[in-house]
Amino acid sequence: MNVLVIGAAGMVGRKFCEELAKRSSIGNKPVDRLTMADTITPVAPIGAPFSVRTLSADISDATVAESLVADRPDMIYHLAAIVSGEAEADFDKGYQVNLNGTRQLFEAVRQAGYRPRVVFTSSIAVFGTPFPETIPEDFAPRPLTSYGTQKAIGELLLADFSRRGFFDGIAIRLPTICVRPGRPNKAASGFFSGIIREPLKGEAAVLPVTDDVRHWFASPRAAVNFLFDAGAIDSTQLGSNRTLNLPGVSTTVGEMIAALERVAGAECVKLIRREPDPTIQKFVDGWPRRLDAARAQALGFKAETSFEEIIRNHIEDEHGGVVA
Amino acid sequence: MNVLVIGAAGMVGRKFCEELAKRSSIGNKPVDRLTMADTITPVAPIGAPFSVRTLSADISDATVAESLVADRPDMIYHLAAIVSGEAEADFDKGYQVNLNGTRQLFEAVRQAGYRPRVVFTSSIAVFGTPFPETIPEDFAPRPLTSYGTQKAIGELLLADFSRRGFFDGIAIRLPTICVRPGRPNKAASGFFSGIIREPLKGEAAVLPVTDDVRHWFASPRAAVNFLFDAGAIDSTQLGSNRTLNLPGVSTTVGEMIAALERVAGAECVKLIRREPDPTIQKFVDGWPRRLDAARAQALGFKAETSFEEIIRNHIEDEHGGVVA
Repeated sequence: MNVLVIGAAGMVGRKFCEELAKRSSIGNKPVDRLTMADTITPVAPIGAPFSVRTLSADISDATVAESLVADRPDMIYHLAAIVSGEAEADFDKGYQVNLNGTRQLFEAVRQAGYRPRVVFTSSIAVFGTPFPETIPEDFAPRPLTSYGTQKAIGELLLADFSRRGFFDGIAIRLPTICVRPGRPNKAASGFFSGIIREPLKGEAAVLPVTDDVRHWFASPRAAVNFLFDAGAIDSTQLGSNRTLNLPGVSTTVGEMIAALERVAGAECVKLIRREPDPTIQKFVDGWPRRLDAARAQALGFKAETSFEEIIRNHIEDEHGGVVA
Repeated sequence: MNVLVIGAAGMVGRKFCEELAKRSSIGNKPVDRLTMADTITPVAPIGAPFSVRTLSADISDATVAESLVADRPDMIYHLAAIVSGEAEADFDKGYQVNLNGTRQLFEAVRQAGYRPRVVFTSSIAVFGTPFPETIPEDFAPRPLTSYGTQKAIGELLLADFSRRGFFDGIAIRLPTICVRPGRPNKAASGFFSGIIREPLKGEAAVLPVTDDVRHWFASPRAAVNFLFDAGAIDSTQLGSNRTLNLPGVSTTVGEMIAALERVAGAECVKLIRREPDPTIQKFVDGWPRRLDAARAQALGFKAETSFEEIIRNHIEDEHGGVVA
């Protein structure tokens, strides 16, 4: 199978490609070729048992999508996006990449005239207040950010292109990924990872919201598994509804900090400094707290069951299993 | 007030402009200028007490939107669309007009740098099965046509552009308009009007679906009133949710025919010929049967309360109140 990953230099894309090099198949289908594309050239995973091509490609350029599907990948992962904070700060750039880029990719597949699986990472940012404490499967996306709007439009396009038979699409609404390794990105949700990641490295972290903020999380490891599952499942089970709420862990900031203390001790959590930021608080108050993801769960999608498990997975994956 | 109506040669656009010529205001704001635009040059209403400009303009042309907002209309009605049947038959044309055209218009308003009211006619076609017998206000749009997809995307764009302060937008989900006067258009829903309109003219009409089909209707007269209301309401009452389910009449084909018989007699309904068409039946079985429109009703939007009232309004408006 020929696999294309767009956005392969991002955190989830990179981890997915590394895991693909280990598993060498998606579902029961062996991979014999992988193309990793991103605006900056991605790094190929070490020791992949299939050929890997890495390339710099900006999907907001209309001709690029065409070239990416020229060798007819059987499986296309479209993970590329301008993140929420940046799409809010730069209206044109967000629409150019997140809407035009996605549409150009879908259109290029249609023009290529074959029918690959297309996995599109959407987000819980498609939902905006007011919503119930647990957002039902049938709840209307009413985004309160341009990023969420662009993702919701991507879902609609994917469903229509799939219905018309131009490709076999699945849109997955990722929970907020936490704990993100590495440096903070421009996502407004970045502090959720920061308050766990930095203290575990012995560094200070700022918490800009109140402890009672509740949100919906999955680990990078869970996100990688979601991508494998989305590539592998029998899409006829989806019917006409091509978008899935994915499972996650619903937890408050206070519970996150308590879990961190259980795992890494009282000194560690002292590194979290509370600096309320009304702007971020207002943003976050409009974010989902819990989703009904029964449909995805019935299809086999699995997340962690507690935030402590998310922290332990982070320590295994990023600290070799050992807290400093 | 300077008013722009795009799609002014269509049935609803034409009737709205004629009514505007009579009322000469929207809410309590007097109109002093009206521009009527469409792909074919619209016909100006007779006796308008304000200046009327008619022009041929194709909003799928990127430069046209800019010229349409050059004189900064205070109120923009965007009614232009490729209808459902045609958008399904011609994928590119549907996306070009219904998505690109709408987006170009919104973008032109943003670039013009002022903040008009923008009224966008969306449709119950944003909903697709499975859905409950009465579709709740918060129900997710999952269109099963490209037309419905394009309308749902238009709603999302309108909400985001409004949230960012680029304009003051309202999207109204029109019920199926019935009884449409004149000749059949390419909408797949055309027969709903045909089985009333043609018999009232003494002509035969074909019914391609079963009598138990239930659907959601409003008259052209109600649609015109919806446009006035959408132009007049205080949009701060909408909060962040800029899309309204509009009220309508939920009725079955059998009840429609019974109402026609009560109004126009047994001979009239004999002109309806049942010719089941499995393709149309399958289409229609995926259409909404009833919507919760409590939010719009609380804001003052009103439809007919029975299908008989819809027929009587049609006879008043199109037959001078007299059945032949």
